[in-house]
Amino acid sequence: MFDLKSYLAEKNEGINSALDELLREDSSRLVKAMRYSLMADGKRIRPVLCIAAAEAVGGKEVDVLPIACAIEMIHTYSLIHDDLPAMDDDDLRRGKPTSHIVYDEATAILAGDALLTLAFQVLSSINGNHQASELITVIRIIAEAAGYCGMIEGQTRDIASEGILLDRKSLEDMHALKTGALIRASVRSGAILGGGSDDQVERLDIYARHIGLAFQVADDILNVEGDPALLGKSVGTDHAREKSTYPSVIGLDESRKLAKHLIFTALQAMGRFDAKADPLRAIATYIIEREK
Amino acid sequence: MFDLKSYLAEKNEGINSALDELLREDSSRLVKAMRYSLMADGKRIRPVLCIAAAEAVGGKEVDVLPIACAIEMIHTYSLIHDDLPAMDDDDLRRGKPTSHIVYDEATAILAGDALLTLAFQVLSSINGNHQASELITVIRIIAEAAGYCGMIEGQTRDIASEGILLDRKSLEDMHALKTGALIRASVRSGAILGGGSDDQVERLDIYARHIGLAFQVADDILNVEGDPALLGKSVGTDHAREKSTYPSVIGLDESRKLAKHLIFTALQAMGRFDAKADPLRAIATYIIEREK
Repeated sequence: MFDLKSYLAEKNEGINSALDELLREDSSRLVKAMRYSLMADGKRIRPVLCIAAAEAVGGKEVDVLPIACAIEMIHTYSLIHDDLPAMDDDDLRRGKPTSHIVYDEATAILAGDALLTLAFQVLSSINGNHQASELITVIRIIAEAAGYCGMIEGQTRDIASEGILLDRKSLEDMHALKTGALIRASVRSGAILGGGSDDQVERLDIYARHIGLAFQVADDILNVEGDPALLGKSVGTDHAREKSTYPSVIGLDESRKLAKHLIFTALQAMGRFDAKADPLRAIATYIIEREK
Repeated sequence: MFDLKSYLAEKNEGINSALDELLREDSSRLVKAMRYSLMADGKRIRPVLCIAAAEAVGGKEVDVLPIACAIEMIHTYSLIHDDLPAMDDDDLRRGKPTSHIVYDEATAILAGDALLTLAFQVLSSINGNHQASELITVIRIIAEAAGYCGMIEGQTRDIASEGILLDRKSLEDMHALKTGALIRASVRSGAILGGGSDDQVERLDIYARHIGLAFQVADDILNVEGDPALLGKSVGTDHAREKSTYPSVIGLDESRKLAKHLIFTALQAMGRFDAKADPLRAIATYIIEREK
Protein backbone atom coordinates (compact mmCIF):
# COMPACT_ATOMS: atom_id res chain seq x y z
CA MET A 1 0.00 0.00 0.00
CA PHE A 2 1.44 3.38 -1.04
CA ASP A 3 2.13 5.65 1.94
CA LEU A 4 1.15 9.17 0.87
CA LYS A 5 1.94 10.76 4.22
CA SER A 6 5.62 9.71 4.06
CA TYR A 7 5.76 10.61 0.38
CA LEU A 8 4.43 14.14 0.98
CA ALA A 9 6.72 14.62 4.00
CA GLU A 10 9.76 13.57 2.00
CA LYS A 11 8.87 15.72 -1.04
CA ASN A 12 8.05 18.72 1.14
CA GLU A 13 11.44 18.46 2.80
CA GLY A 14 13.16 18.51 -0.59
CA ILE A 15 11.02 21.38 -1.84
CA ASN A 16 11.52 23.46 1.30
CA SER A 17 15.24 22.97 1.25
CA ALA A 18 15.43 23.85 -2.47
CA LEU A 19 13.31 26.98 -1.89
CA ASP A 20 15.60 27.93 0.98
CA GLU A 21 18.60 27.69 -1.35
CA LEU A 22 16.95 29.53 -4.23
CA LEU A 23 16.21 32.51 -1.98
CA ARG A 24 18.87 32.76 0.72
CA GLU A 25 18.34 34.75 3.91
CA ASP A 26 19.46 38.32 3.56
CA SER A 27 19.37 41.58 5.47
CA SER A 28 17.13 43.16 2.81
CA ARG A 29 13.62 43.89 4.05
CA LEU A 30 12.32 42.79 0.66
CA VAL A 31 14.00 39.38 0.89
CA LYS A 32 12.73 38.95 4.45
CA ALA A 33 9.18 39.59 3.27
CA MET A 34 9.58 37.22 0.32
CA ARG A 35 10.90 34.47 2.59
CA TYR A 36 8.25 35.13 5.25
CA SER A 37 5.54 33.99 2.84
CA LEU A 38 7.54 31.52 0.76
CA MET A 39 8.93 29.53 3.69
CA ALA A 40 5.61 29.45 5.60
CA ASP A 41 4.03 26.08 6.13
CA GLY A 42 2.25 25.59 2.80
CA LYS A 43 0.82 22.34 1.46
CA ARG A 44 3.20 22.48 -1.54
CA ILE A 45 0.54 20.73 -3.64
CA ARG A 46 1.66 22.28 -6.94
CA PRO A 47 5.38 21.45 -6.65
CA VAL A 48 4.54 17.95 -5.41
CA LEU A 49 2.26 17.45 -8.42
CA CYS A 50 5.03 18.63 -10.73
CA ILE A 51 7.49 16.14 -9.24
CA ALA A 52 4.97 13.29 -9.08
CA ALA A 53 4.03 13.87 -12.74
CA ALA A 54 7.71 13.68 -13.72
CA GLU A 55 8.09 10.47 -11.73
CA ALA A 56 4.92 8.99 -13.23
CA VAL A 57 6.51 9.11 -16.69
CA GLY A 58 9.89 7.79 -15.48
CA GLY A 59 11.62 11.10 -14.74
CA LYS A 60 13.49 12.04 -11.59
CA GLU A 61 12.71 14.57 -8.88
CA VAL A 62 16.04 16.28 -9.37
CA ASP A 63 15.16 17.04 -13.00
CA VAL A 64 12.15 19.15 -12.10
CA LEU A 65 12.80 20.43 -8.57
CA PRO A 66 13.69 24.00 -9.63
CA ILE A 67 10.60 24.10 -11.88
CA ALA A 68 8.46 22.85 -9.01
CA CYS A 69 9.94 25.59 -6.80
CA ALA A 70 9.31 28.27 -9.41
CA ILE A 71 5.65 27.26 -9.53
CA GLU A 72 5.41 27.46 -5.74
CA MET A 73 6.90 30.97 -5.92
CA ILE A 74 4.18 31.98 -8.38
CA HIS A 75 1.51 30.43 -6.17
CA THR A 76 2.90 32.25 -3.12
CA TYR A 77 3.00 35.61 -4.89
CA SER A 78 -0.65 35.13 -5.88
CA LEU A 79 -1.60 34.47 -2.24
CA ILE A 80 0.23 37.60 -1.04
CA HIS A 81 -1.52 39.79 -3.61
CA ASP A 82 -4.93 38.11 -3.16
CA ASP A 83 -4.73 38.81 0.58
CA LEU A 84 -4.10 42.56 0.13
CA PRO A 85 -6.63 45.04 1.55
CA ALA A 86 -7.61 46.08 -1.99
CA MET A 87 -8.41 42.45 -2.83
CA ASP A 88 -9.63 39.86 -0.29
CA ASP A 89 -8.30 41.77 2.74
CA ASP A 90 -7.28 38.63 4.64
CA ASP A 91 -5.34 38.74 7.90
CA LEU A 92 -4.39 35.08 8.18
CA ARG A 93 -2.65 32.74 5.76
CA ARG A 94 -0.76 29.50 6.24
CA GLY A 95 -1.34 29.89 9.97
CA LYS A 96 0.38 33.26 10.17
CA PRO A 97 -0.58 36.93 9.80
CA THR A 98 -0.54 37.92 6.12
CA SER A 99 2.35 39.80 4.56
CA HIS A 100 0.76 43.26 4.58
CA ILE A 101 -0.08 42.83 8.28
CA VAL A 102 3.46 41.84 9.30
CA TYR A 103 5.21 44.22 6.92
CA ASP A 104 3.12 46.83 5.14
CA GLU A 105 1.10 47.07 1.97
CA ALA A 106 3.92 48.42 -0.19
CA THR A 107 6.29 45.69 0.93
CA ALA A 108 3.65 43.01 0.40
CA ILE A 109 3.02 44.21 -3.17
CA LEU A 110 6.75 44.30 -3.89
CA ALA A 111 7.41 40.92 -2.25
CA GLY A 112 4.72 39.42 -4.49
CA ASP A 113 6.18 41.09 -7.58
CA ALA A 114 9.62 39.84 -6.61
CA LEU A 115 8.50 36.24 -6.09
CA LEU A 116 6.80 36.22 -9.49
CA THR A 117 9.96 37.59 -11.09
CA LEU A 118 12.17 35.18 -9.16
CA ALA A 119 10.17 32.28 -10.57
CA PHE A 120 11.28 33.24 -14.09
CA GLN A 121 14.82 33.87 -12.88
CA VAL A 122 14.87 30.32 -11.52
CA LEU A 123 13.29 28.85 -14.66
CA SER A 124 15.89 30.52 -16.87
CA SER A 125 18.83 29.51 -14.65
CA ILE A 126 18.28 25.77 -14.77
CA ASN A 127 21.31 23.69 -15.58
CA GLY A 128 21.12 20.01 -16.29
CA ASN A 129 20.13 17.67 -19.01
CA HIS A 130 17.20 19.62 -20.39
CA GLN A 131 17.20 20.89 -23.93
CA ALA A 132 16.97 24.68 -23.96
CA SER A 133 13.99 24.45 -26.32
CA GLU A 134 12.14 22.20 -23.84
CA LEU A 135 12.82 24.68 -21.06
CA ILE A 136 11.47 27.53 -23.18
CA THR A 137 8.30 25.51 -23.75
CA VAL A 138 7.89 25.01 -20.01
CA ILE A 139 8.49 28.71 -19.30
CA ARG A 140 5.76 29.51 -21.83
CA ILE A 141 3.33 27.00 -20.32
CA ILE A 142 3.86 28.41 -16.85
CA ALA A 143 3.69 32.07 -17.94
CA GLU A 144 0.47 31.45 -19.87
CA ALA A 145 -1.13 29.64 -16.94
CA ALA A 146 -0.15 32.38 -14.49
CA GLY A 147 -1.06 35.27 -16.75
CA TYR A 148 -3.99 37.25 -18.11
CA CYS A 149 -5.47 34.22 -19.89
CA GLY A 150 -5.15 32.10 -16.74
CA MET A 151 -4.75 32.73 -13.03
CA ILE A 152 -4.91 36.54 -13.06
CA GLU A 153 -8.07 36.59 -15.19
CA GLY A 154 -9.55 34.11 -12.67
CA GLN A 155 -8.73 36.40 -9.76
CA THR A 156 -10.18 39.37 -11.65
CA ARG A 157 -13.45 37.47 -12.17
CA ASP A 158 -13.45 36.29 -8.56
CA ILE A 159 -13.28 39.86 -7.29
CA ALA A 160 -15.80 41.14 -9.83
CA SER A 161 -18.31 38.47 -8.86
CA GLU A 162 -18.49 39.31 -5.15
CA GLY A 163 -22.13 39.84 -4.26
CA ILE A 164 -23.32 38.11 -7.43
CA LEU A 165 -24.53 34.51 -7.44
CA LEU A 166 -22.78 32.94 -10.42
CA ASP A 167 -24.28 30.09 -12.40
CA ARG A 168 -22.46 26.78 -12.27
CA LYS A 169 -20.74 27.25 -15.64
CA SER A 170 -19.34 30.69 -14.76
CA LEU A 171 -18.19 29.39 -11.38
CA GLU A 172 -16.39 26.49 -13.05
CA ASP A 173 -14.79 28.78 -15.65
CA MET A 174 -13.60 31.13 -12.95
CA HIS A 175 -11.97 28.31 -10.97
CA ALA A 176 -10.49 26.68 -14.08
CA LEU A 177 -8.65 29.98 -14.52
CA LYS A 178 -7.95 30.94 -10.93
CA THR A 179 -6.61 27.66 -9.57
CA GLY A 180 -6.96 25.14 -12.39
CA ALA A 181 -4.54 26.72 -14.84
CA LEU A 182 -1.49 26.67 -12.55
CA ILE A 183 -2.26 23.14 -11.33
CA ARG A 184 -2.42 21.97 -14.93
CA ALA A 185 0.83 23.77 -15.71
CA SER A 186 2.48 22.05 -12.73
CA VAL A 187 1.54 18.60 -13.98
CA ARG A 188 2.25 19.37 -17.64
CA SER A 189 5.70 20.86 -16.92
CA GLY A 190 6.64 17.88 -14.79
CA ALA A 191 5.39 15.43 -17.41
CA ILE A 192 7.25 17.14 -20.27
CA LEU A 193 10.55 17.55 -18.45
CA GLY A 194 10.20 14.05 -16.97
CA GLY A 195 10.32 12.79 -20.55
CA GLY A 196 6.65 11.81 -21.01
CA SER A 197 5.27 10.95 -24.45
CA ASP A 198 2.64 13.23 -25.99
CA ASP A 199 -0.03 10.70 -25.10
CA GLN A 200 1.13 10.55 -21.47
CA VAL A 201 1.23 14.33 -21.24
CA GLU A 202 -2.35 14.58 -22.54
CA ARG A 203 -3.63 11.89 -20.14
CA LEU A 204 -1.95 13.63 -17.25
CA ASP A 205 -3.58 16.85 -18.36
CA ILE A 206 -7.01 15.24 -18.05
CA TYR A 207 -6.00 14.12 -14.57
CA ALA A 208 -4.82 17.64 -13.71
CA ARG A 209 -7.94 19.34 -15.03
CA HIS A 210 -10.19 17.20 -12.88
CA ILE A 211 -8.19 17.26 -9.66
CA GLY A 212 -7.75 21.02 -10.11
CA LEU A 213 -11.49 21.54 -10.05
CA ALA A 214 -11.95 18.99 -7.26
CA PHE A 215 -9.33 20.87 -5.24
CA GLN A 216 -11.40 24.04 -5.53
CA VAL A 217 -14.68 22.30 -4.67
CA ALA A 218 -12.97 20.83 -1.60
CA ASP A 219 -11.61 24.28 -0.69
CA ASP A 220 -15.12 25.73 -0.91
CA ILE A 221 -16.43 22.95 1.34
CA LEU A 222 -13.61 23.53 3.85
CA ASN A 223 -14.48 27.23 3.90
CA VAL A 224 -17.93 26.18 5.16
CA GLU A 225 -17.12 23.38 7.57
CA GLY A 226 -13.33 23.28 7.98
CA ASP A 227 -11.37 23.85 11.19
CA PRO A 228 -9.56 27.22 11.06
CA ALA A 229 -6.82 25.87 13.35
CA LEU A 230 -6.02 23.09 10.87
CA LEU A 231 -6.53 25.28 7.80
CA GLY A 232 -4.32 28.09 8.98
CA LYS A 233 -6.83 30.57 7.61
CA SER A 234 -10.27 31.84 8.52
CA VAL A 235 -13.45 29.99 7.53
CA GLY A 236 -16.87 31.37 6.60
CA THR A 237 -15.15 34.15 4.69
CA ASP A 238 -16.70 33.22 1.32
CA HIS A 239 -20.20 33.57 2.77
CA ALA A 240 -19.35 36.82 4.56
CA ARG A 241 -17.92 38.21 1.32
CA GLU A 242 -20.88 36.99 -0.72
CA LYS A 243 -18.67 34.89 -2.94
CA SER A 244 -20.21 32.25 -5.15
CA THR A 245 -18.95 28.82 -4.11
CA TYR A 246 -19.92 25.28 -4.97
CA PRO A 247 -21.86 24.87 -1.71
CA SER A 248 -23.72 28.14 -2.34
CA VAL A 249 -24.47 27.35 -6.00
CA ILE A 250 -25.22 23.60 -5.92
CA GLY A 251 -25.42 22.81 -2.17
CA LEU A 252 -23.09 20.95 0.17
CA ASP A 253 -24.23 17.43 -0.69
CA GLU A 254 -24.01 17.97 -4.43
CA SER A 255 -20.58 19.57 -3.94
CA ARG A 256 -19.32 16.46 -2.14
CA LYS A 257 -20.72 14.24 -4.90
CA LEU A 258 -19.15 16.42 -7.59
CA ALA A 259 -15.74 16.31 -5.90
CA LYS A 260 -15.89 12.51 -5.76
CA HIS A 261 -16.96 12.25 -9.37
CA LEU A 262 -14.13 14.54 -10.51
CA ILE A 263 -11.58 12.41 -8.68
CA PHE A 264 -13.08 9.25 -10.21
CA THR A 265 -12.61 10.73 -13.69
CA ALA A 266 -9.05 11.83 -12.86
CA LEU A 267 -8.18 8.31 -11.71
CA GLN A 268 -9.69 6.82 -14.86
CA ALA A 269 -7.36 8.93 -17.02
CA MET A 270 -4.45 7.32 -15.15
CA GLY A 271 -5.56 3.79 -16.07
CA ARG A 272 -2.62 2.92 -18.30
CA PHE A 273 0.07 4.22 -15.96
CA ASP A 274 2.05 1.77 -13.81
CA ALA A 275 2.93 1.94 -10.11
CA LYS A 276 5.17 4.96 -10.67
CA ALA A 277 1.91 6.94 -10.89
CA ASP A 278 0.70 5.79 -7.47
CA PRO A 279 1.65 9.10 -5.83
CA LEU A 280 -0.56 10.96 -8.33
CA ARG A 281 -3.40 8.51 -7.62
CA ALA A 282 -3.05 8.97 -3.88
CA ILE A 283 -2.87 12.77 -4.20
CA ALA A 284 -6.17 12.74 -6.10
CA THR A 285 -7.93 11.07 -3.19
CA TYR A 286 -6.13 13.19 -0.61
CA ILE A 287 -7.33 16.37 -2.32
CA ILE A 288 -10.94 15.77 -1.35
CA GLU A 289 -10.25 14.10 2.00
CA ARG A 290 -7.78 16.64 3.39
CA GLU A 291 -8.59 18.76 6.39
CA LYS A 292 -6.38 21.67 5.39
CA MET B 1 23.69 64.46 -39.50
CA PHE B 2 21.68 61.74 -37.79
CA ASP B 3 18.02 62.70 -37.25
CA LEU B 4 17.04 61.34 -33.85
CA LYS B 5 13.53 62.73 -33.94
CA SER B 6 12.63 60.75 -37.07
CA TYR B 7 14.43 57.70 -35.72
CA LEU B 8 12.48 57.76 -32.44
CA ALA B 9 9.19 58.37 -34.25
CA GLU B 10 9.80 55.44 -36.57
CA LYS B 11 10.89 53.08 -33.78
CA ASN B 12 8.00 54.13 -31.56
CA GLU B 13 5.56 53.35 -34.33
CA GLY B 14 6.99 49.85 -34.71
CA ILE B 15 7.02 49.29 -30.95
CA ASN B 16 3.47 50.55 -30.46
CA SER B 17 2.15 48.41 -33.25
CA ALA B 18 3.96 45.33 -31.93
CA LEU B 19 2.63 45.98 -28.41
CA ASP B 20 -0.84 46.34 -29.86
CA GLU B 21 -0.50 42.93 -31.49
CA LEU B 22 1.00 41.22 -28.46
CA LEU B 23 -1.96 42.30 -26.32
CA ARG B 24 -5.07 42.52 -28.48
CA GLU B 25 -8.14 44.46 -27.40
CA ASP B 26 -10.58 42.34 -25.49
CA SER B 27 -13.78 42.67 -23.50
CA SER B 28 -11.99 41.59 -20.30
CA ARG B 29 -11.67 44.37 -17.73
CA LEU B 30 -8.20 43.09 -16.93
CA VAL B 31 -7.03 43.38 -20.54
CA LYS B 32 -8.55 46.86 -20.80
CA ALA B 33 -6.59 47.95 -17.73
CA MET B 34 -3.38 46.38 -19.06
CA ARG B 35 -3.80 48.14 -22.41
CA TYR B 36 -4.77 51.44 -20.77
CA SER B 37 -1.29 51.73 -19.28
CA LEU B 38 0.70 49.86 -21.92
CA MET B 39 -0.65 51.79 -24.92
CA ALA B 40 -0.39 55.19 -23.21
CA ASP B 41 2.02 57.68 -24.71
CA GLY B 42 5.31 56.53 -23.15
CA LYS B 43 8.79 57.53 -24.25
CA ARG B 44 9.62 53.87 -25.07
CA ILE B 45 13.25 54.57 -24.12
CA ARG B 46 13.99 51.00 -23.02
CA PRO B 47 12.67 49.23 -26.12
CA VAL B 48 14.33 51.81 -28.37
CA LEU B 49 17.63 51.20 -26.56
CA CYS B 50 17.21 47.45 -27.04
CA ILE B 51 16.64 47.86 -30.78
CA ALA B 52 19.38 50.47 -31.19
CA ALA B 53 21.86 48.21 -29.36
CA ALA B 54 21.00 45.33 -31.71
CA GLU B 55 21.45 47.61 -34.71
CA ALA B 56 24.76 48.96 -33.35
CA VAL B 57 26.26 45.46 -33.57
CA GLY B 58 24.77 44.74 -36.99
CA GLY B 59 21.50 43.09 -35.90
CA LYS B 60 18.03 43.90 -37.16
CA GLU B 61 15.04 45.48 -35.43
CA VAL B 62 12.84 42.52 -36.28
CA ASP B 63 15.16 40.18 -34.34
CA VAL B 64 14.63 41.95 -31.05
CA LEU B 65 11.24 43.67 -31.34
CA PRO B 66 9.38 41.17 -29.10
CA ILE B 67 12.16 41.40 -26.50
CA ALA B 68 11.98 45.18 -26.63
CA CYS B 69 8.22 44.95 -26.12
CA ALA B 70 8.57 42.54 -23.19
CA ILE B 71 10.91 45.02 -21.49
CA GLU B 72 8.39 47.84 -22.03
CA MET B 73 5.71 45.62 -20.42
CA ILE B 74 7.93 45.16 -17.37
CA HIS B 75 8.60 48.89 -17.22
CA THR B 76 4.86 49.64 -17.50
CA TYR B 77 3.95 47.16 -14.74
CA SER B 78 6.51 48.84 -12.48
CA LEU B 79 4.95 52.24 -13.12
CA ILE B 80 1.44 50.95 -12.33
CA HIS B 81 2.57 49.43 -9.04
CA ASP B 82 4.81 52.38 -8.09
CA ASP B 83 1.84 54.72 -8.56
CA LEU B 84 -0.43 52.75 -6.18
CA PRO B 85 -1.74 54.48 -3.03
CA ALA B 86 0.41 52.17 -0.85
CA MET B 87 3.51 53.28 -2.77
CA ASP B 88 3.95 56.71 -4.38
CA ASP B 89 0.21 57.45 -4.55
CA ASP B 90 0.41 59.25 -7.89
CA ASP B 91 -2.66 60.39 -9.83
CA LEU B 92 -1.06 61.23 -13.15
CA ARG B 93 1.20 59.22 -15.44
CA ARG B 94 2.00 59.51 -19.12
CA GLY B 95 -0.43 62.41 -19.25
CA LYS B 96 -3.40 60.39 -18.02
CA PRO B 97 -4.95 59.47 -14.67
CA THR B 98 -3.13 56.47 -13.16
CA SER B 99 -4.54 52.94 -13.38
CA HIS B 100 -5.95 52.77 -9.84
CA ILE B 101 -7.75 56.09 -10.41
CA VAL B 102 -9.40 55.00 -13.67
CA TYR B 103 -10.06 51.43 -12.59
CA ASP B 104 -9.54 50.54 -8.94
CA GLU B 105 -6.68 49.40 -6.75
CA ALA B 106 -7.34 45.68 -7.15
CA THR B 107 -7.47 45.97 -10.93
CA ALA B 108 -4.31 48.09 -11.00
CA ILE B 109 -2.42 45.51 -8.93
CA LEU B 110 -3.65 42.69 -11.18
CA ALA B 111 -2.97 44.59 -14.40
CA GLY B 112 0.61 45.13 -13.21
CA ASP B 113 0.98 41.46 -12.30
CA ALA B 114 -0.42 40.48 -15.68
CA LEU B 115 1.92 42.75 -17.66
CA LEU B 116 4.91 41.35 -15.79
CA THR B 117 3.75 37.82 -16.54
CA LEU B 118 2.95 38.68 -20.17
CA ALA B 119 6.54 39.84 -20.62
CA PHE B 120 7.76 36.33 -19.89
CA GLN B 121 5.02 34.83 -22.04
CA VAL B 122 6.27 36.97 -24.92
CA LEU B 123 9.93 36.16 -24.24
CA SER B 124 9.21 32.44 -24.26
CA SER B 125 7.05 32.60 -27.42
CA ILE B 126 9.66 34.10 -29.71
CA ASN B 127 10.09 32.36 -33.03
CA GLY B 128 12.88 33.22 -35.37
CA ASN B 129 16.53 32.65 -35.84
CA HIS B 130 17.57 32.77 -32.21
CA GLN B 131 19.13 29.80 -30.50
CA ALA B 132 16.96 28.63 -27.61
CA SER B 133 19.98 28.84 -25.31
CA GLU B 134 20.53 32.49 -26.25
CA LEU B 135 16.88 33.24 -25.54
CA ILE B 136 17.16 31.59 -22.12
CA THR B 137 20.17 33.80 -21.37
CA VAL B 138 18.18 36.89 -22.28
CA ILE B 139 15.21 35.79 -20.17
CA ARG B 140 17.59 35.37 -17.22
CA ILE B 141 19.20 38.77 -17.78
CA ILE B 142 15.81 40.47 -17.87
CA ALA B 143 14.39 38.55 -14.89
CA GLU B 144 17.47 39.32 -12.79
CA ALA B 145 17.34 43.01 -13.68
CA ALA B 146 13.63 43.25 -12.89
CA GLY B 147 13.76 41.21 -9.70
CA TYR B 148 14.78 41.35 -6.05
CA CYS B 149 18.45 41.99 -6.89
CA GLY B 150 17.51 44.75 -9.32
CA MET B 151 14.50 46.98 -9.95
CA ILE B 152 12.30 45.77 -7.09
CA GLU B 153 15.06 46.15 -4.50
CA GLY B 154 15.57 49.67 -5.87
CA GLN B 155 11.90 50.51 -5.41
CA THR B 156 11.99 49.04 -1.88
CA ARG B 157 14.93 51.29 -0.99
CA ASP B 158 13.27 54.29 -2.64
CA ILE B 159 10.19 53.90 -0.45
CA ALA B 160 12.21 53.16 2.69
CA SER B 161 14.30 56.28 2.21
CA GLU B 162 11.43 58.76 2.10
CA GLY B 163 12.12 61.44 4.70
CA ILE B 164 15.80 60.48 4.92
CA LEU B 165 18.51 62.42 3.13
CA LEU B 166 20.66 59.74 1.49
CA ASP B 167 24.35 60.19 0.87
CA ARG B 168 25.47 60.30 -2.73
CA LYS B 169 26.65 56.69 -2.80
CA SER B 170 23.35 55.29 -1.44
CA LEU B 171 21.40 57.46 -3.87
CA GLU B 172 23.47 56.15 -6.77
CA ASP B 173 23.10 52.53 -5.62
CA MET B 174 19.35 52.96 -5.30
CA HIS B 175 19.04 54.35 -8.82
CA ALA B 176 21.40 51.76 -10.29
CA LEU B 177 18.89 49.21 -9.04
CA LYS B 178 15.61 51.03 -9.59
CA THR B 179 16.13 52.31 -13.13
CA GLY B 180 19.67 51.34 -14.08
CA ALA B 181 19.25 47.57 -14.01
CA LEU B 182 16.42 47.39 -16.56
CA ILE B 183 18.08 49.93 -18.86
CA ARG B 184 21.25 47.83 -18.80
CA ALA B 185 19.22 44.69 -19.47
CA SER B 186 17.57 46.41 -22.45
CA VAL B 187 20.92 47.25 -24.05
CA ARG B 188 22.54 43.93 -23.16
CA SER B 189 19.64 41.84 -24.51
CA GLY B 190 19.62 43.80 -27.73
CA ALA B 191 23.39 43.50 -28.10
CA ILE B 192 23.41 39.75 -27.47
CA LEU B 193 20.50 38.91 -29.75
CA GLY B 194 21.79 41.34 -32.36
CA GLY B 195 24.87 39.13 -32.56
CA GLY B 196 27.39 41.36 -30.76
CA SER B 197 30.80 40.02 -29.71
CA ASP B 198 31.59 39.74 -25.99
CA ASP B 199 33.73 42.86 -26.25
CA GLN B 200 30.91 44.80 -27.93
CA VAL B 201 28.42 43.64 -25.31
CA GLU B 202 30.70 44.82 -22.49
CA ARG B 203 31.32 48.21 -24.12
CA LEU B 204 27.63 48.68 -24.62
CA ASP B 205 27.12 47.78 -20.98
CA ILE B 206 29.42 50.64 -19.93
CA TYR B 207 27.35 52.90 -22.18
CA ALA B 208 24.13 51.61 -20.61
CA ARG B 209 25.35 52.00 -17.04
CA HIS B 210 26.25 55.64 -17.59
CA ILE B 211 23.20 56.70 -19.56
CA GLY B 212 21.01 54.85 -17.03
CA LEU B 213 22.30 56.98 -14.21
CA ALA B 214 22.23 60.13 -16.37
CA PHE B 215 18.59 59.35 -17.18
CA GLN B 216 17.77 59.35 -13.47
CA VAL B 217 19.72 62.53 -12.76
CA ALA B 218 17.83 64.19 -15.62
CA ASP B 219 14.54 62.87 -14.23
CA ASP B 220 15.36 64.35 -10.83
CA ILE B 221 16.15 67.70 -12.47
CA LEU B 222 12.91 67.60 -14.46
CA ASN B 223 11.00 66.91 -11.23
CA VAL B 224 12.34 70.28 -9.98
CA GLU B 225 12.10 72.45 -13.06
CA GLY B 226 10.19 70.49 -15.70
CA ASP B 227 6.86 71.39 -17.28
CA PRO B 228 4.10 69.08 -16.03
CA ALA B 229 2.21 69.52 -19.31
CA LEU B 230 5.17 68.19 -21.31
CA LEU B 231 6.09 65.56 -18.72
CA GLY B 232 2.63 64.08 -18.42
CA LYS B 233 3.12 63.82 -14.67
CA SER B 234 3.28 66.14 -11.69
CA VAL B 235 6.48 67.98 -10.70
CA GLY B 236 7.77 68.93 -7.25
CA THR B 237 6.58 65.54 -5.98
CA ASP B 238 10.05 64.39 -4.89
CA HIS B 239 10.44 67.44 -2.66
CA ALA B 240 6.91 67.12 -1.25
CA ARG B 241 7.55 63.45 -0.48
CA GLU B 242 10.96 64.20 1.05
CA LYS B 243 12.73 61.97 -1.45
CA SER B 244 16.46 62.20 -1.86
CA THR B 245 17.30 63.33 -5.38
CA TYR B 246 20.44 64.50 -7.11
CA PRO B 247 19.39 68.14 -6.84
CA SER B 248 18.66 67.73 -3.12
CA VAL B 249 21.88 65.81 -2.40
CA ILE B 250 24.44 67.61 -4.62
CA GLY B 251 22.53 70.67 -5.85
CA LEU B 252 21.08 71.57 -9.26
CA ASP B 253 24.31 72.84 -10.84
CA GLU B 254 26.34 69.82 -9.76
CA SER B 255 23.52 67.56 -11.00
CA ARG B 256 23.67 69.14 -14.46
CA LYS B 257 27.46 68.74 -14.53
CA LEU B 258 27.20 65.13 -13.40
CA ALA B 259 24.64 64.29 -16.10
CA LYS B 260 26.91 65.77 -18.77
CA HIS B 261 29.93 63.91 -17.46
CA LEU B 262 28.04 60.61 -17.42
CA ILE B 263 27.00 61.09 -21.05
CA PHE B 264 30.59 61.96 -21.98
CA THR B 265 31.78 58.66 -20.45
CA ALA B 266 28.99 56.73 -22.18
CA LEU B 267 29.99 58.21 -25.55
CA GLN B 268 33.63 57.38 -24.93
CA ALA B 269 32.75 53.71 -24.47
CA MET B 270 31.20 53.83 -27.97
CA GLY B 271 34.44 55.02 -29.57
CA ARG B 272 35.13 51.93 -31.63
CA PHE B 273 31.60 51.53 -32.99
CA ASP B 274 30.78 52.71 -36.51
CA ALA B 275 27.87 54.79 -37.80
CA LYS B 276 25.40 52.01 -36.98
CA ALA B 277 25.80 53.16 -33.35
CA ASP B 278 24.78 56.74 -34.15
CA PRO B 279 21.26 56.22 -32.74
CA LEU B 280 22.76 55.16 -29.39
CA ARG B 281 25.05 58.21 -29.45
CA ALA B 282 22.14 60.54 -30.18
CA ILE B 283 19.97 58.93 -27.49
CA ALA B 284 22.70 59.57 -24.91
CA THR B 285 22.59 63.28 -25.60
CA TYR B 286 18.80 63.33 -25.84
CA ILE B 287 18.53 61.75 -22.38
CA ILE B 288 19.85 64.86 -20.65
CA GLU B 289 18.35 67.41 -23.03
CA ARG B 290 14.81 66.04 -23.15
CA GLU B 291 11.88 68.00 -21.74
CA LYS B 292 9.80 64.95 -20.86
